Amino acid sequence: MSIPTLSLRDELQKAPAVFEQFLARFFQENEERYAFGDLFEPLYLDMTEFVGRRGKRIRPLMLLGSYRVFGGDRAFEDASLLRAALSLELLHAFILIHDDVIDQSARRRGLPTFHKLVEERLGRLDDAARIGANVAMVVGDLIFAMALETLRSIDFPARLTDAALSRLLAYITDTGAGEIYDILLGTRDIARVEAAEITRMYTLKTTRYTFEAPLVLGALLAGGSEELLRELAELIEPVGLAFQIQNDVLEYQKFKGVDRLRQTDLLEGKKTLLLRVAYERLEDLDRSFLQLCLSTRASNDSSVSKIEQLIDKSGAVEELTRRMDALFRQSEEALDTSSLTPEQRVGLREAIGLARTQIQQAGTQ
Amino acid sequence: MSIPTLSLRDELQKAPAVFEQFLARFFQENEERYAFGDLFEPLYLDMTEFVGRRGKRIRPLMLLGSYRVFGGDRAFEDASLLRAALSLELLHAFILIHDDVIDQSARRRGLPTFHKLVEERLGRLDDAARIGANVAMVVGDLIFAMALETLRSIDFPARLTDAALSRLLAYITDTGAGEIYDILLGTRDIARVEAAEITRMYTLKTTRYTFEAPLVLGALLAGGSEELLRELAELIEPVGLAFQIQNDVLEYQKFKGVDRLRQTDLLEGKKTLLLRVAYERLEDLDRSFLQLCLSTRASNDSSVSKIEQLIDKSGAVEELTRRMDALFRQSEEALDTSSLTPEQRVGLREAIGLARTQIQQAGTQ
Repeated sequence: MSIPTLSLRDELQKAPAVFEQFLARFFQENEERYAFGDLFEPLYLDMTEFVGRRGKRIRPLMLLGSYRVFGGDRAFEDASLLRAALSLELLHAFILIHDDVIDQSARRRGLPTFHKLVEERLGRLDDAARIGANVAMVVGDLIFAMALETLRSIDFPARLTDAALSRLLAYITDTGAGEIYDILLGTRDIARVEAAEITRMYTLKTTRYTFEAPLVLGALLAGGSEELLRELAELIEPVGLAFQIQNDVLEYQKFKGVDRLRQTDLLEGKKTLLLRVAYERLEDLDRSFLQLCLSTRASNDSSVSKIEQLIDKSGAVEELTRRMDALFRQSEEALDTSSLTPEQRVGLREAIGLARTQIQQAGTQ
Repeated sequence: MSIPTLSLRDELQKAPAVFEQFLARFFQENEERYAFGDLFEPLYLDMTEFVGRRGKRIRPLMLLGSYRVFGGDRAFEDASLLRAALSLELLHAFILIHDDVIDQSARRRGLPTFHKLVEERLGRLDDAARIGANVAMVVGDLIFAMALETLRSIDFPARLTDAALSRLLAYITDTGAGEIYDILLGTRDIARVEAAEITRMYTLKTTRYTFEAPLVLGALLAGGSEELLRELAELIEPVGLAFQIQNDVLEYQKFKGVDRLRQTDLLEGKKTLLLRVAYERLEDLDRSFLQLCLSTRASNDSSVSKIEQLIDKSGAVEELTRRMDALFRQSEEALDTSSLTPEQRVGLREAIGLARTQIQQAGTQ
């Protein structure tokens, strides 16, 4: 059965509150499962607090929206549907926790990162930082298992649950490979990193689990055909890349000249598309200077300031903005020639538009 | 149907070769799935090499044995049965990789640990050690996903596969909690660590996935009842603890006086049962001295030497050896009064005996 997609926006408006409530109850109900004694207790509270932090919940909300757009008939209050949505948020939490350890980040969603929470509790201990990172790594593993168990135990036809689980594992594998690319490209000179490699890294590391997973899993649970799922994955790929480019530009502009020590990507030698496009657009002399600023790994205000000047001079921000607009247009056109029904197109456009607005307000994480 | 359990030993004798062959083929066949480009290629080779290193394969072999003992009628060559067995070896590899990052270990199975492999390849890079640890963490995550997909995709009745997957996720959760206990108990003074906490940590961290998982999953896939699985989990718990105690003693004796810098547990402040029992058995003055040696965290030959003297003086090794024998006897008795058939008892005894011999030869890892 199909529900008028025009009401999707209305339906989605109540979804965030429903989801937050479900999330809080979920951690309460699972408390006993994690009752490993007094040493573990504060960690479970940290896990609850960390996942409960107000994120944008793009992934779970997109899954709910996709489920509805592609003909799913369960109410958003359905516990199994909410569990499927939650599994993506848990997956996200696991990825963030490991990511923050990798990047040695201190803040996440306006509060300490998970390893910092643990480190701070250990207080004056010599190797508190290392222990914090170690505990965070294992807590990430636990939340990974929790995400999978949450999806595995949904009350949907076994065939659908199994297919969803298999896909989720594949998305995780892609995400991990993308993460490894991100780490290893970071060790390379900017001259030796192709834009195509960065693009592929973005797709693997972020698009798969952020856009493809919710869209495809939602449609899958709604009973969508293999062909539909394949088409959706293809349709969303340029959108995912556009979002990543948008994120590059927004992150850069957000901290430019204001708080240079928060230009963490630059400080850490991350090979963003912005940086590579800047490099490609600069003249030889400026290129060498950019290479020098990046290779000294001088994590300080003045090197970041120089890199910013070179990026601005290159016109990379403008070029990426054009590319982003082109990608969004390209996906619009692909949508028009797709096999989706007019109603499904409207629904998907609304979902993308919603994500775009939310990300413009706050960045992809 | 039931196959004479007396032939189990014969059957198990050919199992290792069958398993190794399957493992090698598995990595060949999955190569394409992990074809993420040239940067990832050496990592997939590392993964293949790491998992392929000659371990004792206790977990997969125990699963195969348990499956047969509890009435499973598939041949050991059955691809699905081998996949189920392999999933435990992959899980083990994931746990080892993260464990080695946590302990900053350099060697595993006579070769470099995973993070060391990556670090060595990076060569002269400034932060090669940190990048090695980061990549190893994500590779561990990938192998975790691989383990689950390997079990998920077995061709067994959906009900059994699903139950096996759910249990595996629960074992992983217990293992993670045990790992966290291990890390956090390491930060505590030996006076403030109860033997019962260490015992629970051992059970969670090692027994669950090393002994309970293969035994219970093997019986589950053979069609064993819920009651049988519960009974098996109870029967194996004291055996698991006995093995851990044996491991404590063996590891200690192996390096005592020979190569003190390999007494890594002592150097890292790990709270082993051996250490706690030694502490409990010592007089006040020696206790304080032991505390002092441990708390200075002076990771050197002379502090380890003093700790060794105190452990020897305490008679902890002898006490633990007695406890271990008592635990093995206790499990023998429990087996005799269990609801298992005589044939199943013989089979289970053989499996435990086999594991005991192999572990005595090489330690639990």
